Amino acid sequence: MNTVAAYAVVDQFGIENLKPIAREQQPLGHYEVRVRMRACSLNYRDILMVRGQYNPKQPLPLVPLSDGVGEVVEVGSRVSRVAVGDRVAGIFAQGWTSGAPTRERIRSTLGGPVDGMLSAERVLDEEGVVRVPELLSDTEAATLPCAALTAWTSLVTQGDVGPGDTVLLQGTGGVSIFALRFAKLLGARVIITSSSGEKLERAQELGADHVINYAEVREWGRMARDFTGGVGVDHVVEVGGAGTLAQSLKAVRVGGHVSVIGVLAGAVQPVNVIPILMNNIRLQGIIVGSRDGFEAMNRAIAQHEVRPVIDRIFDFDDSVGAFEHLAAARHFGKVCISFR
Amino acid sequence: MNTVAAYAVVDQFGIENLKPIAREQQPLGHYEVRVRMRACSLNYRDILMVRGQYNPKQPLPLVPLSDGVGEVVEVGSRVSRVAVGDRVAGIFAQGWTSGAPTRERIRSTLGGPVDGMLSAERVLDEEGVVRVPELLSDTEAATLPCAALTAWTSLVTQGDVGPGDTVLLQGTGGVSIFALRFAKLLGARVIITSSSGEKLERAQELGADHVINYAEVREWGRMARDFTGGVGVDHVVEVGGAGTLAQSLKAVRVGGHVSVIGVLAGAVQPVNVIPILMNNIRLQGIIVGSRDGFEAMNRAIAQHEVRPVIDRIFDFDDSVGAFEHLAAARHFGKVCISFR
Amino acid sequence: MNTVAAYAVVDQFGIENLKPIAREQQPLGHYEVRVRMRACSLNYRDILMVRGQYNPKQPLPLVPLSDGVGEVVEVGSRVSRVAVGDRVAGIFAQGWTSGAPTRERIRSTLGGPVDGMLSAERVLDEEGVVRVPELLSDTEAATLPCAALTAWTSLVTQGDVGPGDTVLLQGTGGVSIFALRFAKLLGARVIITSSSGEKLERAQELGADHVINYAEVREWGRMARDFTGGVGVDHVVEVGGAGTLAQSLKAVRVGGHVSVIGVLAGAVQPVNVIPILMNNIRLQGIIVGSRDGFEAMNRAIAQHEVRPVIDRIFDFDDSVGAFEHLAAARHFGKVCISFR
Amino acid sequence: MNTVAAYAVVDQFGIENLKPIAREQQPLGHYEVRVRMRACSLNYRDILMVRGQYNPKQPLPLVPLSDGVGEVVEVGSRVSRVAVGDRVAGIFAQGWTSGAPTRERIRSTLGGPVDGMLSAERVLDEEGVVRVPELLSDTEAATLPCAALTAWTSLVTQGDVGPGDTVLLQGTGGVSIFALRFAKLLGARVIITSSSGEKLERAQELGADHVINYAEVREWGRMARDFTGGVGVDHVVEVGGAGTLAQSLKAVRVGGHVSVIGVLAGAVQPVNVIPILMNNIRLQGIIVGSRDGFEAMNRAIAQHEVRPVIDRIFDFDDSVGAFEHLAAARHFGKVCISFR
Repeated sequence: MNTVAAYAVVDQFGIENLKPIAREQQPLGHYEVRVRMRACSLNYRDILMVRGQYNPKQPLPLVPLSDGVGEVVEVGSRVSRVAVGDRVAGIFAQGWTSGAPTRERIRSTLGGPVDGMLSAERVLDEEGVVRVPELLSDTEAATLPCAALTAWTSLVTQGDVGPGDTVLLQGTGGVSIFALRFAKLLGARVIITSSSGEKLERAQELGADHVINYAEVREWGRMARDFTGGVGVDHVVEVGGAGTLAQSLKAVRVGGHVSVIGVLAGAVQPVNVIPILMNNIRLQGIIVGSRDGFEAMNRAIAQHEVRPVIDRIFDFDDSVGAFEHLAAARHFGKVCISFR
Repeated sequence: MNTVAAYAVVDQFGIENLKPIAREQQPLGHYEVRVRMRACSLNYRDILMVRGQYNPKQPLPLVPLSDGVGEVVEVGSRVSRVAVGDRVAGIFAQGWTSGAPTRERIRSTLGGPVDGMLSAERVLDEEGVVRVPELLSDTEAATLPCAALTAWTSLVTQGDVGPGDTVLLQGTGGVSIFALRFAKLLGARVIITSSSGEKLERAQELGADHVINYAEVREWGRMARDFTGGVGVDHVVEVGGAGTLAQSLKAVRVGGHVSVIGVLAGAVQPVNVIPILMNNIRLQGIIVGSRDGFEAMNRAIAQHEVRPVIDRIFDFDDSVGAFEHLAAARHFGKVCISFR
Repeated sequence: MNTVAAYAVVDQFGIENLKPIAREQQPLGHYEVRVRMRACSLNYRDILMVRGQYNPKQPLPLVPLSDGVGEVVEVGSRVSRVAVGDRVAGIFAQGWTSGAPTRERIRSTLGGPVDGMLSAERVLDEEGVVRVPELLSDTEAATLPCAALTAWTSLVTQGDVGPGDTVLLQGTGGVSIFALRFAKLLGARVIITSSSGEKLERAQELGADHVINYAEVREWGRMARDFTGGVGVDHVVEVGGAGTLAQSLKAVRVGGHVSVIGVLAGAVQPVNVIPILMNNIRLQGIIVGSRDGFEAMNRAIAQHEVRPVIDRIFDFDDSVGAFEHLAAARHFGKVCISFR
Repeated sequence: MNTVAAYAVVDQFGIENLKPIAREQQPLGHYEVRVRMRACSLNYRDILMVRGQYNPKQPLPLVPLSDGVGEVVEVGSRVSRVAVGDRVAGIFAQGWTSGAPTRERIRSTLGGPVDGMLSAERVLDEEGVVRVPELLSDTEAATLPCAALTAWTSLVTQGDVGPGDTVLLQGTGGVSIFALRFAKLLGARVIITSSSGEKLERAQELGADHVINYAEVREWGRMARDFTGGVGVDHVVEVGGAGTLAQSLKAVRVGGHVSVIGVLAGAVQPVNVIPILMNNIRLQGIIVGSRDGFEAMNRAIAQHEVRPVIDRIFDFDDSVGAFEHLAAARHFGKVCISFR
């Protein structure tokens, strides 16, 4: 019987407890596809998950990672959506193909509670995969399922951002950098924050119109507003962190939108709801997106030849190193793992 | 020269400082209308305003009250929207006739910062008034501009509530009772909370499908969710108060909406943003609504002969009594003032 | 080997060529359910299909009928959406569960090109069925998949109809009567046309606010507009027929909506596009709806205990009689077939 | 008493009857502004209007032209929206500042029935003008009110076009060229048709991704579809003309949109409504747009420094020549008139 190499949090939570394992190869159902993995990417959620901070009740062992891309090497007898040889990504919420999110649709997410992609091979329902744009390398494509789709859902599906609009982005993590790229495609103006002058320079090279070093400007919400002539920004992608929401509410215009996406966020923070009320502001929680959104995003990526920004690629054998690198938070763009 | 009788907070804030005054009659511009007031209604915002709690920098004297209805007794030379003899209400945000809210549009609100309706006569721009449904008495019509329109904007303009949906309402104040009436027109199911068994009975008579006494059930968010078979309610009209938002977030379904309308709310409260994120919830601040919304609401009121629930009508001479009655918070429906 | 009784158009098109047949019982896939049919209903599309007028290239034999309800009697090994004993309807477009329509999603429709429901037993993918409201009889439930969902999609999903709105309906066929029921749930006012005074009386009993006998009033578009004080109706459900669209365009207000649903329509008719342009009118083609819409509609039907209007129920053995009765166009509400 | 030079259709319709006139200078109301005109632009509607083909009952004399830009030289006592020295355009529908179109809002359109902009001076309500982007020349700015805003309303307000979408444009007139520019800002792919190879080359220089010479390819609807891999285009801006709608319906995808804007269209043409129905297509009539849309468009134009394409500028004294040039239909972009 064949075995499949993977990494898992076996006995107890913690990045240091992430161990290589061998699993039995899984049989293939009629509507399932076998994917030989080529590359993964990490999200901050993966770190929280591995540490047991995302869901302390998550059963172990757990194979982590929501994002992964591979080649279809075998298909079940009734599979019609994809074919052997196709290069596919898993979709984060395996049950959310289309329409509005529901509890059922967002229940089975890869990388916890369902086993994730840090495995040399994965068997998935044909409905749970999506073809990725040809122009992207494997690692580039592996960055799309969570970070890119979260940015797309925020700005496009929910945000309706367009030319003449101003978008405020926080930091230079995976979602924010994708949001920067997409906001420019959409014709919007972008303000981005970071505590690193070097990262802000790179953001400007990627098209950011205004930058704010929040280590130097504590009232960056007000400064963002000033960039709009005092009117306020149209859209904030709120990735969270202590006190960021308060600043976002100072930055956003009357009737503006704040996409709340941040698992970085402190779990509970004091929020003054009065400005939300008084300024007709919308806070919209965003948990990645549907497969329909993924496919629409892929069309845009292919048309505009958007190349994801990759910080560093680790070998599969050094997966623990990838987690440690992301946890150190010095990256710009995505941290990836390659299976070759 | 003619004078007009009014009430105003003259020197310092406080309900006890609300005094009868006489003002010079205002001349009429080409596009203005003179309205002989017939009735007003009170909102909790008016109490905060008079006490200096809404805006401590509000210049005095201030004639309070956002809501009032009267008869057009004179029109400027170029007025075309209304005619002498029409019965009209002022619109809360005098500059917000249509479209999305902007800072400019929501700046000039009646009852602060702009002088309000507790005056025997008011001169308003023709764009700042709206004809009220004929079937309503003067006091009934006087309840519409803030409370009713806030409920309408929450459920219809922003909420898209319809048959098969479940709406959770908090308490039995003006907005909540209008929301109850409108939710039933829209075909939705209604859950309503109160700490008074008697008020809950009256809410049931008005069509509430489920009631929760929050004095007895502290986890009323969970109970509301249970009424939906565990799925969660589709829409919450959040009128605020200590800890209510936390319960609302427990009650609402994945992808559901929370209309944040509450000036009752404590100014700052700790909010756990994680459920907003994880469950794709939308929080939408609502500050009354546009004149377009007012007119759409009036069509619905006229068609369905919706009669507002009036708690008690005070004489103009006893306006202070009206404020004290609302502040005591034992009302069910609207507290009104009549000029006759 | 077991056989299943059905009706099919075997050799050539025509109602008179609809014949009883016996088919081999179909094996069950892992994700499929076996449904013992209890009732069907007919739509005008079925007549066009059987006559070869809907698609002259439709391969034969074809088992007709899009609408049917039955009991799940067996489920595949991996079925999770439904259980043995559940009462389910097939969804018209088997691939359209959610989201926007696409060519792929609306390709596999029951009753042509895919075999339909006029069969004692049907095997369907679990994704292609939906549980029906308990309060409905089998024949009542059998009326939902096409006619009811088309009306729901028109008024709710696409139309955003609500209290204060006026809806114009044409005739008293299946879609129009469901649209009447739903429009009333939504709080709207309804104008309905017919050439039969008796049918108009029945429509009034079901809640129609205004009726027009188009045999007597040729310019019924203008008359409908007059019922709205000259403003025009907000929404028309255009079921087609010679010259109806021209009247609909006269009836609808500036910025109003026309749902184009009519397979009754002459294939090509002269349309004056100028009023569409000049009055900002929206024409929206409607081809039934998604499973999400079906489930939302079912929640509304269950909450409001909406009982479909059934014209007449034929025995399975008299299926040809059902087709002839519908073709004669003297029905009010739905024509059904029972398998008992 | 001062007089103002203008052109008008005085006695009878026809370009040849367009004559220079002198009118009394109009007094200024409290809310009005006096604009010294600097430039106008022509739309095909102006030709139809002058010929009496748009509205044969249009009273004469009529000063034509919907589009014009000038400098505010005097303001009424209560004007607050603009100041002396501002450069403004008139808005086409003087009453449509915001929100959905209504009969009242689109009634008073410049260039018929209301006198238009071909006048050395115009007095307009302050609500009926909008500041234009500084980067544009006077003639460039004069092209915005109708052609540009129609394109913007089609693609943005109504069309929701974005990256990954494909837009089909017909011909190289004013609206189509603006639609090309805006579609590229929005990140969409553009297919454009013309009967002139030279014009198609210029369209490619402006960013068109695919071009079709409809003089050579009669089935250009199918060819446009082929450019999308057979799926169909997402959006068509239908400017009208014999048989174009039939081709548009062949080009558009299931669930796609067709903006119907064309006064070029034959008044009545046979339309096969079946594809509209079967493919869930939306036809949306577009009559320019609101002032809110104009201002949003201006923000996008300023941000992206969009320079309108001007075909030729005529002197005010040669206004008749401008009409004749547009009527000859050999232009690419906008035909303008300068007052200097």
